[in-house]
Amino acid sequence: MLDSDSAGFFADAQTLDQDAYIHLDYYLECTGDPRLAAAHFCAEQSTAQWRRVGHAEDLRAQFAARVIDLTILNSELTAFSYGIRTPPGERVSACHLTIAHPHANFGARLPNLLSAVCGEGTFFSPGAPIIKLLDIRFPDAYLAAFTGPRFGVEGLREQLQVYQRPIFFGVIKPNIGLPPDAFSQLGYESWLGGLDIAKDDEMLADTDWCPLSERSALLGAARRQAEYETGVPKCYLANITDEVDRLIELHDLAVANGANALLVNAMPVGLSAVRMLCKHATVPLIAHFPLLAPFNRLAHFGIHSQVFTKLQRLAGFDAIIMPGFGARMHMSDAEVIANVNACLAPMGAIKRSLPVPGGSDWAGTLNEVYQKVGTVDFGFVPGRGVFGHPLGPRAGAASIRQAWDAIAAGQSVAEYATTHEELKAAFQAFGVSHTLPTPASDIQGTS
Amino acid sequence: MLDSDSAGFFADAQTLDQDAYIHLDYYLECTGDPRLAAAHFCAEQSTAQWRRVGHAEDLRAQFAARVIDLTILNSELTAFSYGIRTPPGERVSACHLTIAHPHANFGARLPNLLSAVCGEGTFFSPGAPIIKLLDIRFPDAYLAAFTGPRFGVEGLREQLQVYQRPIFFGVIKPNIGLPPDAFSQLGYESWLGGLDIAKDDEMLADTDWCPLSERSALLGAARRQAEYETGVPKCYLANITDEVDRLIELHDLAVANGANALLVNAMPVGLSAVRMLCKHATVPLIAHFPLLAPFNRLAHFGIHSQVFTKLQRLAGFDAIIMPGFGARMHMSDAEVIANVNACLAPMGAIKRSLPVPGGSDWAGTLNEVYQKVGTVDFGFVPGRGVFGHPLGPRAGAASIRQAWDAIAAGQSVAEYATTHEELKAAFQAFGVSHTLPTPASDIQGTS
Repeated sequence: MLDSDSAGFFADAQTLDQDAYIHLDYYLECTGDPRLAAAHFCAEQSTAQWRRVGHAEDLRAQFAARVIDLTILNSELTAFSYGIRTPPGERVSACHLTIAHPHANFGARLPNLLSAVCGEGTFFSPGAPIIKLLDIRFPDAYLAAFTGPRFGVEGLREQLQVYQRPIFFGVIKPNIGLPPDAFSQLGYESWLGGLDIAKDDEMLADTDWCPLSERSALLGAARRQAEYETGVPKCYLANITDEVDRLIELHDLAVANGANALLVNAMPVGLSAVRMLCKHATVPLIAHFPLLAPFNRLAHFGIHSQVFTKLQRLAGFDAIIMPGFGARMHMSDAEVIANVNACLAPMGAIKRSLPVPGGSDWAGTLNEVYQKVGTVDFGFVPGRGVFGHPLGPRAGAASIRQAWDAIAAGQSVAEYATTHEELKAAFQAFGVSHTLPTPASDIQGTS
Repeated sequence: MLDSDSAGFFADAQTLDQDAYIHLDYYLECTGDPRLAAAHFCAEQSTAQWRRVGHAEDLRAQFAARVIDLTILNSELTAFSYGIRTPPGERVSACHLTIAHPHANFGARLPNLLSAVCGEGTFFSPGAPIIKLLDIRFPDAYLAAFTGPRFGVEGLREQLQVYQRPIFFGVIKPNIGLPPDAFSQLGYESWLGGLDIAKDDEMLADTDWCPLSERSALLGAARRQAEYETGVPKCYLANITDEVDRLIELHDLAVANGANALLVNAMPVGLSAVRMLCKHATVPLIAHFPLLAPFNRLAHFGIHSQVFTKLQRLAGFDAIIMPGFGARMHMSDAEVIANVNACLAPMGAIKRSLPVPGGSDWAGTLNEVYQKVGTVDFGFVPGRGVFGHPLGPRAGAASIRQAWDAIAAGQSVAEYATTHEELKAAFQAFGVSHTLPTPASDIQGTS
């Protein structure tokens, strides 16, 4: 690209039709002139060759992505981050770019959006091997083409009749290996103890040793029995993550059997397949986060988690399980909060998704999560904190509810534990270490 | 996990039923005892809690992933790679792990496979934030559940009647912005010049300004006309990347209109949706690589590209466009070759996929690609090298064929150029720099 060509890839944001452009923030490290690198970056993700040979035309006016802000963070780096080979003698500049990308280039299609804004063009722009897509913002005109969550936070609350407190999930454990009857018994116990939602692990599939048909029938019945005994609505969240051509069939099977929310691993199944499923679904759809960490973990390379949280909300997930607080999850508090906000902040007419930040939680971590999130509109999702509780899952679930009772009453959870057996046992089992122990068998010699 | 518990996550590979386990190679950086970290790593991707509270059971025998090889590469690192926070005073060990994972845990389902081997468990194992999944190997018993490519290398050759040479693709450019008639004219010219396959760019969608219906009708007709004029089969590779619930409809539309191969952006659409489409497809399916670089680019974090190449082949792609050679693509030659081998090496009864390593190619890069790949079973995919050729796309395509004629005759391509006009012009336009220029307009003042 000639220097004179680069001007076609810059614009004053005020001069652009706001409805016609998605805004994108990127971190970028490049060699050479950052202005030229930014122009190349826009060209590669939109119209890399903007005229035919021998024709007087310029496709940039309508089709070019445009730099609307370029901030040079550091122009004196001696090398690219993360060990990427730097041409000898070259200086590296670190930049923050904001780009306006005309969405008519691809339309309201998630696979095509991804291909344009974080596809080949983005990651193979010349001289700029280190890139992170930091954020994405949509005009209402684009959002209007999406349905988003059918239920959202309010719909989930209505289904569960739970207001003014977090929603309490639990991941039934052992997650892999139990037959359906033993597995359903654990769910049942956890509901009696006070869980709102007992869920399949994100790795639990429709396997020979725990078929979804049998599992959902038993858990559906156990859920109804628990509702009868407790007098409050309960939810069995069945994992229907599977090949795309089985999603509708598994939805219908699980729902008919009594599952009243469904889990889908968003990235392994694909956001677009989720959008398809949402058109069919009659119960809330809940996302889990496998395959996202490779994009998100590093500060300066990949795709920020809030981008995928926004896209999961757009695809139609009613709740989004995401990496939460604590060293184990390798997310800064700020990044977790950004994801919570991506679920809850206004987004055209798209409903709010319930954020469910998770990671090695138990009763003793609830207050900290609540304080950090700053709203009751979140889900809390222990696994072993309920199902590895020394007195069993019913007590494990009770320990979570007792922790919330203390918080709601403005009391110290630890102090409340001195007079509440299940909470006390939780502190004894989980209070010392952040790594939850595997429960010891009461019969020796099995491990 | 207790030290005594970790033994349940190790095994001698010889003692395991070979048919029942997938083998996985990982790079891993951890604090503490690498043996314990490796056991945790297996637990997190299989059965993290292997017994219910109060029960004498051990689910590990059937369900545990097992370390079958642990090699400590360096036990004296002072910090994790890539700026990941290292707990003060901790030593970091870099390890190479080979794990046998029982595939009955999830079955022959791509989303569930991904969730298990590179999902939450893998990337959130305690004390091990730096991970790269390096390779995956399947037993024939697992592969038998997949159909793989319907056509494969041999089927593509038969369709095109092209043997004993590479298959010549070209990406029609300008990629974004041309209306269907101008776009189809470029494809037509390139076929007359000698291209086998003219393709839509991976970013070109079914948009208002270039609807697939009109585009495929025009290109289908142009393809047939070019076949009539040249007397040889040609291929129009239409991009049907779109929302999952449109793939079948767009397949049917494009094929009815004369597209005789279809492009799908594998990761943005999802591998499982591709597997679904393959069951329906009547023409070869060809993968493009957006969204893969964020997994692959760094040496010690993410997922190696050959893992996704194998999965794309398993999903059923007949050809796989992948990042190729040269500094622009940020792949080592060894990594490109590994991906070529992932397409061509024996894999149970799964057919071979045609590897198509791409990146800023033109006639002058063909011999180097051929020499490095070491077989004629590859696709060559210039964009501007054909469509930015100063004499137009017909000459651009001819320059590629002339380069091959030279190679096939054992002659120097540069020398051959002295007597072949189109090849000569290619050297004049593209021979100096590795960045291909945007064609200048023959009318001034348009840029």
